[in-house]
Amino acid sequence: MSDLLDTVRGLAKKTDSKILMVVLDGVGGLPLTLGGDTELATAKTPNLDALAAASQLGLAELVGAGITPGSGPGHLSLFGYDPLHYVVGRGALSAVGIGVKLGAGDVAVRGNFATLGAGRIVDDRRAGRPSDEKNVEIVAKLREAIAEIDGTPVEIYTESEHRFVVVFRAVGGVALGANISDVDPQDTGVQPMTAVAHDEAGAKTAQLVNTFVARAEAALSAEPQVNGVLFRGYSDVPHFPSFDAAYQLRAACIASYPMYKGLASLVGMDVLPVEGHEDALEGKVAALTENWAKYDFFYFHVKKTDSTGEDGDFAAKVKKIELFDALLPQLLALKPDVLCIVGDHSTPSKLASHSWHPVPFLIHAEHGRKDVANRYTEEEAGRGSLGLRKGTDIMPLLMANALKLNKYGA
Amino acid sequence: MSDLLDTVRGLAKKTDSKILMVVLDGVGGLPLTLGGDTELATAKTPNLDALAAASQLGLAELVGAGITPGSGPGHLSLFGYDPLHYVVGRGALSAVGIGVKLGAGDVAVRGNFATLGAGRIVDDRRAGRPSDEKNVEIVAKLREAIAEIDGTPVEIYTESEHRFVVVFRAVGGVALGANISDVDPQDTGVQPMTAVAHDEAGAKTAQLVNTFVARAEAALSAEPQVNGVLFRGYSDVPHFPSFDAAYQLRAACIASYPMYKGLASLVGMDVLPVEGHEDALEGKVAALTENWAKYDFFYFHVKKTDSTGEDGDFAAKVKKIELFDALLPQLLALKPDVLCIVGDHSTPSKLASHSWHPVPFLIHAEHGRKDVANRYTEEEAGRGSLGLRKGTDIMPLLMANALKLNKYGA
Repeated sequence: MSDLLDTVRGLAKKTDSKILMVVLDGVGGLPLTLGGDTELATAKTPNLDALAAASQLGLAELVGAGITPGSGPGHLSLFGYDPLHYVVGRGALSAVGIGVKLGAGDVAVRGNFATLGAGRIVDDRRAGRPSDEKNVEIVAKLREAIAEIDGTPVEIYTESEHRFVVVFRAVGGVALGANISDVDPQDTGVQPMTAVAHDEAGAKTAQLVNTFVARAEAALSAEPQVNGVLFRGYSDVPHFPSFDAAYQLRAACIASYPMYKGLASLVGMDVLPVEGHEDALEGKVAALTENWAKYDFFYFHVKKTDSTGEDGDFAAKVKKIELFDALLPQLLALKPDVLCIVGDHSTPSKLASHSWHPVPFLIHAEHGRKDVANRYTEEEAGRGSLGLRKGTDIMPLLMANALKLNKYGA
Repeated sequence: MSDLLDTVRGLAKKTDSKILMVVLDGVGGLPLTLGGDTELATAKTPNLDALAAASQLGLAELVGAGITPGSGPGHLSLFGYDPLHYVVGRGALSAVGIGVKLGAGDVAVRGNFATLGAGRIVDDRRAGRPSDEKNVEIVAKLREAIAEIDGTPVEIYTESEHRFVVVFRAVGGVALGANISDVDPQDTGVQPMTAVAHDEAGAKTAQLVNTFVARAEAALSAEPQVNGVLFRGYSDVPHFPSFDAAYQLRAACIASYPMYKGLASLVGMDVLPVEGHEDALEGKVAALTENWAKYDFFYFHVKKTDSTGEDGDFAAKVKKIELFDALLPQLLALKPDVLCIVGDHSTPSKLASHSWHPVPFLIHAEHGRKDVANRYTEEEAGRGSLGLRKGTDIMPLLMANALKLNKYGA
């Protein structure tokens, strides 16, 4: 457990002040050629510029020097949980992301539909990327065929395309272990692997998984393409203090993608409904405005800054940053006591992937010092008064700025 | 064990990219008078300047705030091993540095020849600093007199002047302990001390050491000056992950002094032969060029920046820096994917010793951000985008810049 989180937990107090944390997913970038401008530096952002001029800035490493954060660890760090200590498995994330609550002893598993050829040889690890409709159809078939295995309830959920989630429910208070080997061979031209338990607690789970695989193949034998299942990433419920326990905050999540809602729900935030498709920025602002009175902390997630970076589309990422800039006045109109703008990792268009480069963060609050940084860019944030820090420093800084932390010691 | 090294170890992957880490020993300095220029700032370094303008810079503390690193801890930190966790005894360093392999359970000890007067009183703790030739002669005498003690094989090696190394080899799988007290009283006018074991595993070692002392004095009784031995710094083999295990790197060391070759060999680097005397810079460049295809990582050591600092010779240190600058184009011609220039500690001429001041480091790589630092100096590095960091951050940053690390978490 992070020492700082422990300390903060002991000092947190309830007040009326409100914190708004805006996460521009993957917002940190790189210049296309050495010495050039990043996406943030290229974007025309008059509102962000004005805000930055009246704010304190810094750079944050979400996991550690040189480490490229996945979305899970990046967000955990922003929420104040050291991602090297608090590990959330992909299965648990997926399950919680589609609104499935996990109980103690349950195990959630990420599944892929696959195409198996003669002799159970994996021809396609993603079953030709079926449509979401096909996915739903296949999941319905599986639900009918596998409602339980030897008395253990089995729940099957559609995710998207070739992805689905299985939850094995613990019965009679006996926890299922998650420490078992993958079924996914991570290659084609070979058979799916048999799951093997790495410890005693995993023995029953491995049996359940292997039985599931066999019964699924039987149930899907008439399917030409979606006729096999592969499992990878088993996880039980992560145990760590909720946002309320850690910070005494009533916290709300405003996001539209399952992964982020799942993460927020894992740390005990209420996930607010958002109207609209995809990033649904206007719907998010509406949800924020409507619920402003009800919470102390809002996590407001913007996805497209990452997606465009992942696509390697510099110009599109610049546009998405400008789109957020245009939205910013609506957020400022709510007059949050503390406003933080940050990314969960960098996603430079140049690399078309997440990267290790620190993310700029901005804190706008009443009790700040003079700061020379005048734009919300990587370079300016590097000159900012908040310095280069670990991502887990951000929540304590927000809590402090919101005057929600008691003094440490007499 | 350092969390970050553990994490990096789990993420490292093999790629074709090449990392060149140049260690300018003790390169950090101080101005002779407050407000003046350091050795680096004084030196005319057109090649380093041009490189710095196209690189990212920062400052590193190798051990911790205010801590002056020895060469061992300084290098371990650069190699990514937290020197507060990974401790290598001087005896092990010396042994490995002269090419002696240590096995599990063996103990290596640093010895000094001393001059003993009447009543075994220490007159000179360094036996008047005998010549290397005299050292070899004395070691030969000791080898003849002490090939083994009670069945334990004893190996004696010459180092230089008054310094030698003894290795006690474990027999029958029973490890010798290294936790015993010194023979060296660290003072003259007193007798050598009797070694005492601090734990059970050390009991046999203490006996071996005390017997060695007695038999050495007997063998050297006819010598007028070199007639006693003092021991200080016992060590067994350090246990930590090799460079290959930690980073998946085939690593080569290009150095000419025993200590540095020993350190590199301890972490599993291949030590390449270098032609030439002393710092042998041209020989080092030749070794680098010849072996460029064979390794993923090169540790290239330059010694004289430290020696001149230790001599308190500001102008000479400036010259050695300029000498390296003249060599730099030959290194750049190899087009390393990631080039790092750094020191293992500061050695300001003003102090004529190692010091605690952070060392400037420079990373030249494709995926970097804009950086305002325009020279490889302490002051400019302090304005650099990589900030003030722990030395152990450097290897993860190099690995990341070489695109040799997978993403952490989903």
